[in-house]
Amino acid sequence: MASQAKKLINDPDDVVTEFIEGLVETYPNLQYLDGFPEVKVVLRADISPATYDKVVVISGGGSGHEPAHAGFVGEGMLAAAICGDVFASPPVDAVLAGIRAVTGPMGCLLIVKNYTGDRLNFGLAAELAKSEGYMVEMVIVGDDCALPPPRGIVGRRGLAGTILVHKVAGAAAAAGLSLKDVAAEAKRASEMIGTMGVALSVCTLPGQATSNRLAPGKMELGLGIHGEPGVAVADIQPVDMVISHVLTKILSPESNYVPISRGNRVIIMTNGLGATPIMELMIASGKTVTKLQLEHGLAVDRVYVGSFMTSLDMAGFSITIMKADESILQRLDAATKAPAWPVGVNGNRPTPKFPVPMPPSSLKAMNVSSSRPRELSKQGLLLEAAIEAAAKAVIDIKDQLNEWDGEAGDADCGSTVSPLKVSSSLPLAHFFFPPFWLPAQYLPVLQLFKGATAILEDLKNHYPLNDAAETVNEVGTSMRVMGGTSGIM
Amino acid sequence: MASQAKKLINDPDDVVTEFIEGLVETYPNLQYLDGFPEVKVVLRADISPATYDKVVVISGGGSGHEPAHAGFVGEGMLAAAICGDVFASPPVDAVLAGIRAVTGPMGCLLIVKNYTGDRLNFGLAAELAKSEGYMVEMVIVGDDCALPPPRGIVGRRGLAGTILVHKVAGAAAAAGLSLKDVAAEAKRASEMIGTMGVALSVCTLPGQATSNRLAPGKMELGLGIHGEPGVAVADIQPVDMVISHVLTKILSPESNYVPISRGNRVIIMTNGLGATPIMELMIASGKTVTKLQLEHGLAVDRVYVGSFMTSLDMAGFSITIMKADESILQRLDAATKAPAWPVGVNGNRPTPKFPVPMPPSSLKAMNVSSSRPRELSKQGLLLEAAIEAAAKAVIDIKDQLNEWDGEAGDADCGSTVSPLKVSSSLPLAHFFFPPFWLPAQYLPVLQLFKGATAILEDLKNHYPLNDAAETVNEVGTSMRVMGGTSGIM
Repeated sequence: MASQAKKLINDPDDVVTEFIEGLVETYPNLQYLDGFPEVKVVLRADISPATYDKVVVISGGGSGHEPAHAGFVGEGMLAAAICGDVFASPPVDAVLAGIRAVTGPMGCLLIVKNYTGDRLNFGLAAELAKSEGYMVEMVIVGDDCALPPPRGIVGRRGLAGTILVHKVAGAAAAAGLSLKDVAAEAKRASEMIGTMGVALSVCTLPGQATSNRLAPGKMELGLGIHGEPGVAVADIQPVDMVISHVLTKILSPESNYVPISRGNRVIIMTNGLGATPIMELMIASGKTVTKLQLEHGLAVDRVYVGSFMTSLDMAGFSITIMKADESILQRLDAATKAPAWPVGVNGNRPTPKFPVPMPPSSLKAMNVSSSRPRELSKQGLLLEAAIEAAAKAVIDIKDQLNEWDGEAGDADCGSTVSPLKVSSSLPLAHFFFPPFWLPAQYLPVLQLFKGATAILEDLKNHYPLNDAAETVNEVGTSMRVMGGTSGIM
Repeated sequence: MASQAKKLINDPDDVVTEFIEGLVETYPNLQYLDGFPEVKVVLRADISPATYDKVVVISGGGSGHEPAHAGFVGEGMLAAAICGDVFASPPVDAVLAGIRAVTGPMGCLLIVKNYTGDRLNFGLAAELAKSEGYMVEMVIVGDDCALPPPRGIVGRRGLAGTILVHKVAGAAAAAGLSLKDVAAEAKRASEMIGTMGVALSVCTLPGQATSNRLAPGKMELGLGIHGEPGVAVADIQPVDMVISHVLTKILSPESNYVPISRGNRVIIMTNGLGATPIMELMIASGKTVTKLQLEHGLAVDRVYVGSFMTSLDMAGFSITIMKADESILQRLDAATKAPAWPVGVNGNRPTPKFPVPMPPSSLKAMNVSSSRPRELSKQGLLLEAAIEAAAKAVIDIKDQLNEWDGEAGDADCGSTVSPLKVSSSLPLAHFFFPPFWLPAQYLPVLQLFKGATAILEDLKNHYPLNDAAETVNEVGTSMRVMGGTSGIM
């Protein structure tokens, strides 16, 4: 049975307003229009609309996609973000209040994801604002590449690529361009992006039960960011294969969604969907770079990794590919104070990037200082047999070690762990353990096998077995590959 | 039964090296020592140790805590991060290779989380480096506040507060201080921090089965970041109560872990544990600020929110409180190129921060342009009854609407949704719906109730019921509170 989703929130009806309150406490450059609960607008604290001499860029939509869009408010990106309820477009009044709060004589560009509700609410607000004398333009973003054309009258969904359009438009506005030119740059940017997502779990709305839609071992491809089912469900595969599939879809010459072909330069955005660890996002991102270079013949100019356009607590990611040129790079690299825009990404990327080599003074060289005697003495033979038996004993008791490991798992909490009763059938394995385990870092059994394996290898290669004291030193050096607490002890 | 955890990775043994490869593709200022698989070290690409004229700060530990520590490498924070296998301390050789790769004549400060394995591996590497002529100091961080003293010989665990120590030390080093002074600032910072975590799920190691430890509806308090069980298991409560509990523990005068008392200034770090949506982190953060101010009499100088020190895919967060003074603020505010350090946080925070008021020209004012007649005509009475019945009908069919909503959930995918068969028992409800639902944004049933409720209220207050055309206009205006697709249509 599906159970209530676990969330650290208060009243499910208050999640958006409480999110905004937390956001403005965190970032002193942001403020909000307190028209709660209907009007939920985050805006730059430093804009006086009457005298502001640049175009303002505004976006927004349903909430549940944090940090989008409120986290991208700041000099150089959005002037305001209009937040709807979770997965619901904001009402016209909220959009209109946001336009009025920041728009000066240079006018306002609305960037809207391609969903019916957003198009209608932002569109009507734009008309009302124009009737009040404001200059307003609107650009619609539809970057989804999951479904083949034709996409009917609705067109493609707006996904994480929208954030790249925010950045291009925001930088163009900050550079002092006219509303017409800012809108033209935003529209052009929107035509350069393609996005597709992969999910391991279905998002759960605050206060609702979790969905059983996605079974263990399954993933969805081509999902939406509002809980819409994916285009396909498949067994979870290595992320290498998942990315190959996603890139093929985005760059498909049949659908022709993005004008990218071999030899072009591109930008990547790897976007976490809400519950995806950074480790997984980085792995996916590194593989995407390699595949674009080697399999698609593209040069990668910038890589943006993080959670930009999420779907509440969904696990998975989307990949966005954008065709790059000097003009777009200049906009993406321009300074911004928007807190959720990634830093440290700018700069020329050597292709291919060479890993820094190990310094020659590495310990690997130190190990070679000893060598195996040509002939072993009687004592040497005995020592060899003992070390080999001990190492093999460790390798053989894998299951038992795993069991002990589980029991010692709370050792970090500071409680004393009882001395382990080392079985009398393992006298040699004992050689490798301290007589009891100190309260210690989580002990990966993996490390013990690494150590035992390294010892077996070094034993054959270079232990000076006729010298027992030196050999014990070498055993210690071999075990330094282990890491963990056990390695060092 | 526990099932294999869903992860978007390749070989579980390669997650750390593939993470590092993705990281350096993303951030051009980072490189790595390719001593894979044993030596996994991320370092600044711009340091030539022979001539580097500042102290270098190095940290590291087991992986699985991304972005810690590699994401904090960059000018103004760490010079290198030594990455162990998942949850295992890096081996001595890796630490030593990292020290050699970046340390210049001013020396090196190692910042180490308080776990036995890290203390031993970093400690031995420090001794070896000293024997090679390097100047090395080490500062241990133990900021955990979950368990009461005494903590025995092991002491308190190192948690997310370690990142604040990185920042203070990194800024002190960048300012040109001597090794002795950088170490002293780091040590002092480590004594100013307290951390405690709350988890909704147990982390799963790559390739392992998920744990059944934490039942539906339960959370753990005072957990570790390596899967160690929490100090207590409790029913999930509103996050307000969870935070009250956590703050009481951290600031407890009995344990006296942090020297913070009423009237002090503090810094907050709200740290996601890996699978926590930003929405939830921001809600928690906003509530933490309020409670510290109102319940503990503390002024909050800075708020850092994000995922800094995670535990793979664990859902939940930790809260860190640090005592602030001008010296610490200066270090935290100093510029850094470390990609995972948050931006947009600096600046004086008005206390209390007033929300921006709605502009007076808001639509709320527009609604008052019409008014209810003193007496209703026959037609007016009829219209009132019809509108009231319709609105109530919508409110009454909540369950059925929820059902339709689920079925229409894939409307975004671009496939045409069949016209809804509106039941003949609901002729008045029909009034509020378009005859069929366009492929539309995910339709939150909530919005329909908002609309119907607003209509009932405005009906009594100001509909000009004797004028049918004007009244229909007013109904439209009332429905603009709804948001979503249905609101605007």
